[in-house]
Amino acid sequence: MSDRYASFVQSGAGRALVKRLGLPDPPRLRRYAPGEPILPGPVLLGSASGGRLTEPVGRILAAAGLALRDPATAVPDPTTGRTPDSAALVYDATGITDSTGLRQLYDFFHPQARAVQPSGRVIVLGTPPAECAGTREATAQRALEGLTRSIGKEFGRGITAQLVHVTREADESTWTSLEATLRFLLSGRSAYVSGQVIRVGAGQATAPVDWERPLDGQVVLVTGAARGIGAALARVLARDGATVLALDVPAAGDELASVANEIGASAVQLDLTAADAPTRLAEYLAGRHGRVDVVVHNAGITRDKTLGRMDADRWNQVIDVNLSSQERINDLLLERELIPAGGRIVGVSSIAGIAGNRGQTNYATSKAGVIGLVDSLAPALRERRISVNAVAPGFIETRLTARIPLVVREAGRRMNSLAQGGLPVDVAETISWLAWPASGAISGNVVRVCGQSLLGA
Amino acid sequence: MSDRYASFVQSGAGRALVKRLGLPDPPRLRRYAPGEPILPGPVLLGSASGGRLTEPVGRILAAAGLALRDPATAVPDPTTGRTPDSAALVYDATGITDSTGLRQLYDFFHPQARAVQPSGRVIVLGTPPAECAGTREATAQRALEGLTRSIGKEFGRGITAQLVHVTREADESTWTSLEATLRFLLSGRSAYVSGQVIRVGAGQATAPVDWERPLDGQVVLVTGAARGIGAALARVLARDGATVLALDVPAAGDELASVANEIGASAVQLDLTAADAPTRLAEYLAGRHGRVDVVVHNAGITRDKTLGRMDADRWNQVIDVNLSSQERINDLLLERELIPAGGRIVGVSSIAGIAGNRGQTNYATSKAGVIGLVDSLAPALRERRISVNAVAPGFIETRLTARIPLVVREAGRRMNSLAQGGLPVDVAETISWLAWPASGAISGNVVRVCGQSLLGA
Repeated sequence: MSDRYASFVQSGAGRALVKRLGLPDPPRLRRYAPGEPILPGPVLLGSASGGRLTEPVGRILAAAGLALRDPATAVPDPTTGRTPDSAALVYDATGITDSTGLRQLYDFFHPQARAVQPSGRVIVLGTPPAECAGTREATAQRALEGLTRSIGKEFGRGITAQLVHVTREADESTWTSLEATLRFLLSGRSAYVSGQVIRVGAGQATAPVDWERPLDGQVVLVTGAARGIGAALARVLARDGATVLALDVPAAGDELASVANEIGASAVQLDLTAADAPTRLAEYLAGRHGRVDVVVHNAGITRDKTLGRMDADRWNQVIDVNLSSQERINDLLLERELIPAGGRIVGVSSIAGIAGNRGQTNYATSKAGVIGLVDSLAPALRERRISVNAVAPGFIETRLTARIPLVVREAGRRMNSLAQGGLPVDVAETISWLAWPASGAISGNVVRVCGQSLLGA
Repeated sequence: MSDRYASFVQSGAGRALVKRLGLPDPPRLRRYAPGEPILPGPVLLGSASGGRLTEPVGRILAAAGLALRDPATAVPDPTTGRTPDSAALVYDATGITDSTGLRQLYDFFHPQARAVQPSGRVIVLGTPPAECAGTREATAQRALEGLTRSIGKEFGRGITAQLVHVTREADESTWTSLEATLRFLLSGRSAYVSGQVIRVGAGQATAPVDWERPLDGQVVLVTGAARGIGAALARVLARDGATVLALDVPAAGDELASVANEIGASAVQLDLTAADAPTRLAEYLAGRHGRVDVVVHNAGITRDKTLGRMDADRWNQVIDVNLSSQERINDLLLERELIPAGGRIVGVSSIAGIAGNRGQTNYATSKAGVIGLVDSLAPALRERRISVNAVAPGFIETRLTARIPLVVREAGRRMNSLAQGGLPVDVAETISWLAWPASGAISGNVVRVCGQSLLGA
């Protein structure tokens, strides 16, 4: 086996695969720090002819203080043949109404492909295929996904690529949420998000007074806040200006108190699977603030076993904690109107919920259910102007993954376009973005935070 | 690197991953041969309480000559503790209307998990979440996907697992197409299809006189028929009773003639990218049979290069052959009404079209476009009762893949639940099933033929 592996490593075409599985020096990702500019360099904004988003996006980027590169300077130098680097490429592809028009993508991206800075960004803007005027346009718009996902796998050096679908029925909230999305995607907040399709619709979105405090005045409940991703999330939400209600089971009380004290949050000890938990939570929220603007269902457990060896408790606990208890809480908080218009619900799914996983029939079922919850609750709450989204983390460095044997862990870390595992803060930043009042016109999305993992369905 | 790999191979939990990447003895898959029974053993049919499909599916399975196991015999032997093997587990989950009801899945599958024969089948029947009565039901139905995808990854030994969504507005055509789907999925025809979600709707489906000749009397056009998957497809379609029109470029004329002669097909030499190709093809079809019941757009090319090194010809050719020319042909054949009511269009996408791929921005864009074509054309043609679907092959053993360096090829072969590459016949069988008149109520599906590849989006 070892010899076979050695020849694999040394084979020409093998190197590309090995690079992903065992790269010794993965790129250092640009991450967000308060006060820093969104991007360390200029944005090149391109457009297919007839694009409807070029003008509003140009305005948004300029208002956000980003430097737009003059397209005349984004051409190869006649002496060196090199195109000057951009920190981001943003391309309005909404003008492409037929597959023959896809050629415009090539014309824009081919000369820029090697002129993007490390940890740079590629964002393609499109129209949701379901909103397209005819089959030719819908086909061409759907084709964009193949381009962005390939760019994410190809460009390397920490560069991410996304497709952002913007509704044709844009209202003021659409532009606010598009600004929130561009600020998130262009900044280091989205360091570990790549290869995603994000839909910005209409709804109720409110721009913050200060984009450095996008959650100012917002009451945010986070479950499972004592440790791991939940603790990182509580910190990011507090940094972004939220009033955080940090909830966890009584057994994690000490850790929870420590997180809550650190960030000035309220600690809430509650076992969410208890029969009276929804009522007790609703009463707490009603008494404390009279409302909760954002509910983040971060609490989740694993109880892995292959199905033949799994006892019923393992099945029941995982389904109950990860899915059923969250449904009971949503339903009661909604029934008592504790989540106001413009509120947000954010769930946590998983790659296992998308692709399934060996030894995780219970977990994957619960996490696929979270996707179902987003898909079904988002349209049901449109009238009430409450958004529902989820994140789906990939390989994230936590206490759980630290226990995986070294080499399996290394493989898991490498099997993505960024050649490394993500950090809890990467998931937290993505949840925070979905929790912003400015993101209210984004609903029904499941956004993977996986470095564009190779794994999927 | 070698030592690290060796410790990887020898580590406890590492073995599971290695098993997939380098298994020395992948299971021998059961494949279809005319005259053989659909399954080599009995089917165990289970049901969640209140399931609406148990009765019709029981009738379909009995009519297809399958032996239904008495549930009383599908329990552990009191002496040995072993449950007798079934060749297939079929479970009607449509009665699950809340996540708490998911427990019924555990109750059925847990005792059967180690009692499925090699190359056996697991099929879960559900309701499309979009048709569910409320968010609780939609959530629970969506959760089924996590279960079937995990079972596909967990059961091993050539066992496949699928989720089949059956419309609530079932008509006679729905039952015919459900029968076609169950016959396909239970038989060796679906050897390399696993982890899929297949939607059976309403429409126009016609059961064959003889299920061994499901394409009897049907005129089927296959492009790219001279070699590889296309040649295998021409053979399978002819075996299934079709009148095959085998098309390829003039340069492949000799190979095309050889395939056509072998199966009694008509050879059609035509460059589909030529400006007059749609007209010439329409005239040929009008003159020959006055119609074409099925069009299979199998012709496709790759011209791999990273985007920065790709010349414009590579981009244009791939988009034109794989996407634009197919749109021009569809549109003209539909305009001239050469595809009758009940007709079928089948395209070929790719995992690259789903997940993107390094060095394939052109190919992935074209193949994502094929998914867009299916998504948009299927509803547009519902009124005319013409179905539109596609297959998305994974790692298939062809002349192209034979050129990949050994160890990379081995990795590609192993990174799926069946631990091996598929054969061209596996793709051909899947396309043929979608081409059957009995499958007419299946539309808007993209079915992967990838052995449940780990790769995805």
